[in-house]
Amino acid sequence: MIISMKLHSSKEEIDQVCERIRDFGYKIHAIEGEERVVIGAVGVGDVTACLESVEAMPQVEKAVRISAPYKFVSKEFHTERSRIRVNGCEIGGDEFIVMAGPCSVESENQIMRAAEGVAACGAKLLRGGAFKPRTSPYDFQGLETEGLKLLAKAKRATGLAIITEVMSDRDVSLVAEYADVLQIGARNMQNFALLKTLGKCGRAVLLKRGMSSTIRELLMSAEYIVAHGNPNVILCERGIRTFETATRNTCDIAAVAVLDELTHLPVILDPSHATGKRSLVPALCRAAVAIGADGLLVEVHPWPEKAVSDGAQSLDLSQFRKMMHDLQPYLDLWKESRVTPATAAV
Amino acid sequence: MIISMKLHSSKEEIDQVCERIRDFGYKIHAIEGEERVVIGAVGVGDVTACLESVEAMPQVEKAVRISAPYKFVSKEFHTERSRIRVNGCEIGGDEFIVMAGPCSVESENQIMRAAEGVAACGAKLLRGGAFKPRTSPYDFQGLETEGLKLLAKAKRATGLAIITEVMSDRDVSLVAEYADVLQIGARNMQNFALLKTLGKCGRAVLLKRGMSSTIRELLMSAEYIVAHGNPNVILCERGIRTFETATRNTCDIAAVAVLDELTHLPVILDPSHATGKRSLVPALCRAAVAIGADGLLVEVHPWPEKAVSDGAQSLDLSQFRKMMHDLQPYLDLWKESRVTPATAAV
Amino acid sequence: MIISMKLHSSKEEIDQVCERIRDFGYKIHAIEGEERVVIGAVGVGDVTACLESVEAMPQVEKAVRISAPYKFVSKEFHTERSRIRVNGCEIGGDEFIVMAGPCSVESENQIMRAAEGVAACGAKLLRGGAFKPRTSPYDFQGLETEGLKLLAKAKRATGLAIITEVMSDRDVSLVAEYADVLQIGARNMQNFALLKTLGKCGRAVLLKRGMSSTIRELLMSAEYIVAHGNPNVILCERGIRTFETATRNTCDIAAVAVLDELTHLPVILDPSHATGKRSLVPALCRAAVAIGADGLLVEVHPWPEKAVSDGAQSLDLSQFRKMMHDLQPYLDLWKESRVTPATAAV
Amino acid sequence: MIISMKLHSSKEEIDQVCERIRDFGYKIHAIEGEERVVIGAVGVGDVTACLESVEAMPQVEKAVRISAPYKFVSKEFHTERSRIRVNGCEIGGDEFIVMAGPCSVESENQIMRAAEGVAACGAKLLRGGAFKPRTSPYDFQGLETEGLKLLAKAKRATGLAIITEVMSDRDVSLVAEYADVLQIGARNMQNFALLKTLGKCGRAVLLKRGMSSTIRELLMSAEYIVAHGNPNVILCERGIRTFETATRNTCDIAAVAVLDELTHLPVILDPSHATGKRSLVPALCRAAVAIGADGLLVEVHPWPEKAVSDGAQSLDLSQFRKMMHDLQPYLDLWKESRVTPATAAV
Repeated sequence: MIISMKLHSSKEEIDQVCERIRDFGYKIHAIEGEERVVIGAVGVGDVTACLESVEAMPQVEKAVRISAPYKFVSKEFHTERSRIRVNGCEIGGDEFIVMAGPCSVESENQIMRAAEGVAACGAKLLRGGAFKPRTSPYDFQGLETEGLKLLAKAKRATGLAIITEVMSDRDVSLVAEYADVLQIGARNMQNFALLKTLGKCGRAVLLKRGMSSTIRELLMSAEYIVAHGNPNVILCERGIRTFETATRNTCDIAAVAVLDELTHLPVILDPSHATGKRSLVPALCRAAVAIGADGLLVEVHPWPEKAVSDGAQSLDLSQFRKMMHDLQPYLDLWKESRVTPATAAV
Repeated sequence: MIISMKLHSSKEEIDQVCERIRDFGYKIHAIEGEERVVIGAVGVGDVTACLESVEAMPQVEKAVRISAPYKFVSKEFHTERSRIRVNGCEIGGDEFIVMAGPCSVESENQIMRAAEGVAACGAKLLRGGAFKPRTSPYDFQGLETEGLKLLAKAKRATGLAIITEVMSDRDVSLVAEYADVLQIGARNMQNFALLKTLGKCGRAVLLKRGMSSTIRELLMSAEYIVAHGNPNVILCERGIRTFETATRNTCDIAAVAVLDELTHLPVILDPSHATGKRSLVPALCRAAVAIGADGLLVEVHPWPEKAVSDGAQSLDLSQFRKMMHDLQPYLDLWKESRVTPATAAV
Repeated sequence: MIISMKLHSSKEEIDQVCERIRDFGYKIHAIEGEERVVIGAVGVGDVTACLESVEAMPQVEKAVRISAPYKFVSKEFHTERSRIRVNGCEIGGDEFIVMAGPCSVESENQIMRAAEGVAACGAKLLRGGAFKPRTSPYDFQGLETEGLKLLAKAKRATGLAIITEVMSDRDVSLVAEYADVLQIGARNMQNFALLKTLGKCGRAVLLKRGMSSTIRELLMSAEYIVAHGNPNVILCERGIRTFETATRNTCDIAAVAVLDELTHLPVILDPSHATGKRSLVPALCRAAVAIGADGLLVEVHPWPEKAVSDGAQSLDLSQFRKMMHDLQPYLDLWKESRVTPATAAV
Repeated sequence: MIISMKLHSSKEEIDQVCERIRDFGYKIHAIEGEERVVIGAVGVGDVTACLESVEAMPQVEKAVRISAPYKFVSKEFHTERSRIRVNGCEIGGDEFIVMAGPCSVESENQIMRAAEGVAACGAKLLRGGAFKPRTSPYDFQGLETEGLKLLAKAKRATGLAIITEVMSDRDVSLVAEYADVLQIGARNMQNFALLKTLGKCGRAVLLKRGMSSTIRELLMSAEYIVAHGNPNVILCERGIRTFETATRNTCDIAAVAVLDELTHLPVILDPSHATGKRSLVPALCRAAVAIGADGLLVEVHPWPEKAVSDGAQSLDLSQFRKMMHDLQPYLDLWKESRVTPATAAV
């Protein structure tokens, strides 16, 4: 920790702050500058509690932690890339993984056509929401258990693994019966009751970044799940909320590269929510592959104009096929760089 | 709805869109401009589904709804101000209501001192978290049931009503046993499972605005609670997330005035989270009273430097006393304007 | 400065960094933590250059400055409130100053009616744009010199001081002939060529906060003007750009209180641009007075529906009269607190 | 235009609005919904003035324009991609163009080494600032004319074209003597005096997106330059300002794809300012190529740790060489798609 005192603090005030820090088990190095005193504190203790306490003291200008607040998910302590096995494929490994399917499970016909279509183009997981978080109470809320059963049927027919959202800690065990990967939506990234329950379920978790969450907060939420017992967490960048309205969200593509420096967990991109617009999806997918994401989560619907949700950002099956085809040369480059990683450039 | 077609759409394409809209039960008015065709749709139908469907059609440029997506919480349909009775006082009525207390319930001594102190200065509700949403899994998570019991004890001793946070639908009935008002934190504003459960509990709810939620989304979340059966919702502005780092959040003070135009629900301000800095709290409180909020939610701790959370933004008891004293002339003006409201100026 | 090294830096790498810092004239205090080394640097030198250089070194994790980057405008070095005299009134003194008038000067009749109207209600300065920054090249760009002359005529008729915008360093001397206060718009807050020229003009400057500028950047831009020779700078909060679209901008009301802690310069609020909506202006004005701003900049037009710009956020003359009347009791409280300031509460 | 009336507007109020719109030369289509009346206006007139006027009327809820506010830069009116010839190369054509060099011109040795180094790796333009916009008045402000002369010398030695920033309309003709492309920084994107002057200079312009400017505003600023006579405008995405602090700005990579749909002007990406961190630059460059940008603007310094500005985000020459080498297979794919564009997928 670095604690910066206010200008003109007295010796007595500085001593009080130092004593407080020592009470938390830290060693002190006070630095007297021309204008003010800065205190460095090192050691092992309850950093957050110490920071909170010191910041509340009247003569303290600012208190800043130096070490990262997460451990399990940090690359500093676990340098090798995590590989998460799901239904015979590996996320974070040597294959780029595409997860695709409709926003919501709507009917047997819809989900079966979607599953067959995306499987034929190389997707490894089928997405589809049975529990739907909707801004309005009057909108379609999902088929719930009925939807989960339809996903299971699609899995049996196609061999695709299933990824589907869970919105409440109450539903975790139910959804885990049917899903291979439990998806946590952006609005629930800091639903800590849910995160703790996920720590104890036996399923991989795909954790979407909250729409106004920092990268650090995303990692802290992943840390919750891992610290509670579940190391199989996949991170997902899906766009953040900014002032720009030309796209539904602003895709923070650099977050993929930042996360690659900070964590060993796999990172995938959701170009559908990031843009909200079907015509932009293929371009974003190319960028995601080129920047080194581990996979994609793409909305695909057999008949987007009939979708009950997110139709405008869903590809239809022929558009998805074309996109996967056009993506192939980029996937080849991805594969090459993954198998023989460049020696770090910078 | 207003649907704007892309440039150079053919007559056939326009007809397809019109037909789709009619299928949802709307009447059509197509307007042929110099450059493009715009379609107006009026009637009663499933607006969201229709918009979703039409927006997914390839020749549609944009589809916009005109009517507000909420009904129960709208001032258009219920012009009189809602008054929410809690433990003998009324929020949204003729008294400005101050809710105060520590971030977390930490110990009996702490919560009793806080309760006595804020009661003596005119607060009507005691705040204090028993369940704590914390960014890090390693931080203090609250005393849980033990904390609820301490709040109940403080209520018996002081007569203050209790407001405390609930983080999961699982805990709603437990917390409702002890609390007069259930607080929903910013991170849970769109935890729809939780919102639905709150609709069925018998307690008033204080709904905090999400840190990147629009005013419209806040109203939609309130609509969830009301539509599921609970009309006693209090809204709370607590700052939004922006690029500015001088304050913990950016207090959107105008939201109080905007909400006053849009909804009959009471609106209060949380100056502690909005600023994150004790020294700014009194100034924000004056602004909240002057702009016409219905109350305040203020963090007060008997010994802020010993607080396990939010010490830097907590007033101590003597600071709170001074603030309440200095606020009095503003409260007198508030009272006057509330009892004899000015005829609308503009 | 505080420099935090990367994990596992070698002794040699740390020494290189220390040496670099010493080259800039600083003294070094290295602190060895459990995980990493942190270096404190104190002394007087070219902080920015040193930070830039050190941050570019590969083993440096982060480099942070401790001291504020501004001097002239800081309260730390000039504790007394600056009072800026303009045409017989004082901004930052014991009177709350209202500046009012139309967005653009449109015609003699319009500006004369506006000037008479706002003067009659107690405004001390007349605002009105002769040079207009417009997003579109096809929009009205202002009457330019002709507009300045009309402002001068309005000044002669009413005695009001004139505040008007200057958009280019080329026009500073022209505008300074007619204006008492030169207004710098949000889009030009970091037009450094303009700021330097303002440092040498003999007029007071009203500097609007850029729509995505931090409070620190606003102070740095003020520092430019003062450092180049002109101490008469008034700061103006006019809303920042966020994700919220219910208002034109998001009024960062807390910035007024933050600035009061950081600088001795006067701070005023522009509720018209902050909200973009006439009906919200009176509420924001009350909040500005209560929080302790030094004045207001309000858009008022004799016939808002005929305004060539910003009509929707302009009050008409009777609305302005009513607002000023309703504001009076708040102004009385303001006056009281300014003349006998409370002993600091916290 | 679409004008939505407030609920319960009277027939008379609606008629007044219709009449006002007709005064501006538009035809009216009023649509009576269940809840409110919506008015469509078509024709050719002064849209902005009409919108402003109508929005200021008390019974109008909202007024929205349908047509894009820009013409010259729009793809709707000029479908073919603009190719801008500069010093023998073509931006927006069949070659991906790399512009590289230091943030500031610091000395002859520095700029010559930089120029030779980037030329050897395939860059076509040399960047380097002679006039520097700096947040602080105490920071290095650039070598000005002396810097321009050094750039000219580097051009003679290497054949590279020169791109350098101009900050004031006063300096346009001076900088145009030395530069092939005039760079407009993010802070000046809406410096309209400067934009108008650029319209009349004989040089290509690289217009950087303002850090809180929407894509639409960027296009409007480009429209200023083109409407004033200069069609040679290159757009540059360089990151926008958001709440995320892990990177210096947030790279809005999707903006490249959005702009490709909206405009025929070339679009390049600046990965250095977008991230602020050297180690992230190569990843962003791959993404930019894959998404289909027309080029890159990259900061490269022979000795980043000695840079007077932006050292932390500058590549050194060997890092730049490696990056260009690793980029080659992506450039091959880019070339292929540009020469034989895929038939539009969606």
